[in-house]
Amino acid sequence: MTKVDAILDHIAIAVDDLKAAKEIYQDMGATFSRTSEIVASEGVETLFAPLDKQAHLELLGPHGESGPLHKFLEKNGPGIHHLCFRVPNIEKKCAELRSKGYQLIYDIPRAGARGVTMNFVHPKSTRGVLIELVQEAKQ
Amino acid sequence: MTKVDAILDHIAIAVDDLKAAKEIYQDMGATFSRTSEIVASEGVETLFAPLDKQAHLELLGPHGESGPLHKFLEKNGPGIHHLCFRVPNIEKKCAELRSKGYQLIYDIPRAGARGVTMNFVHPKSTRGVLIELVQEAKQ
Repeated sequence: MTKVDAILDHIAIAVDDLKAAKEIYQDMGATFSRTSEIVASEGVETLFAPLDKQAHLELLGPHGESGPLHKFLEKNGPGIHHLCFRVPNIEKKCAELRSKGYQLIYDIPRAGARGVTMNFVHPKSTRGVLIELVQEAKQ
Repeated sequence: MTKVDAILDHIAIAVDDLKAAKEIYQDMGATFSRTSEIVASEGVETLFAPLDKQAHLELLGPHGESGPLHKFLEKNGPGIHHLCFRVPNIEKKCAELRSKGYQLIYDIPRAGARGVTMNFVHPKSTRGVLIELVQEAKQ
């Protein structure tokens, strides 16, 4: 197995009930941050648990009346929502992916939580998996 | 964020075309083992890429005429198939989960690839996510 730098940032699970889902993953061995974070602009409430050296589990619960997550839950029910990989340079990676025919969700990468810059690759381009790409904030 | 031992073993993606899927995840930054492994008893061909210190990405492609993966692909199309968490003692964990009302797939944990002992928690018990649990082989 080739050694590589960590590329998994997080796995996001769409949940209809954040408290109930937290208990399930605690039963599987996960330890969550004490408090959840509300991202009002996205209509989500999130909880994180470390899964490895860098990678985390993110539970995504609905917050407020509507948003993309509410739509996802209505259509699919709760389940795995997306995978997020780290890239060293998000602008460069998005340009490279576009040149190969991948469909990106945003024209220009956006600011995300924890100071990251992020974009999504559409599941139509990835054989069914929504993939988030993030570039970490400079330390 | 609380520090914990790594609990994520792998994320498994069901794919209809192993070669095409490998190229997608290479484009996202993953580096795969050179050769795939055929698990004839499960009707799958697998490819692994490291994602973090311990965690891996597993691509699961169909092998042969039929199997659980063939059925999954017919029903859902390609996409994320399951998450796999490491537990220190699989027998103890399965007994604990059963006592809490979780539905396990196998009555008794089975031998898996790389010498692990494994079982699955049914997605009906986990709000929509198929979760594999593995105990590593003793070194």
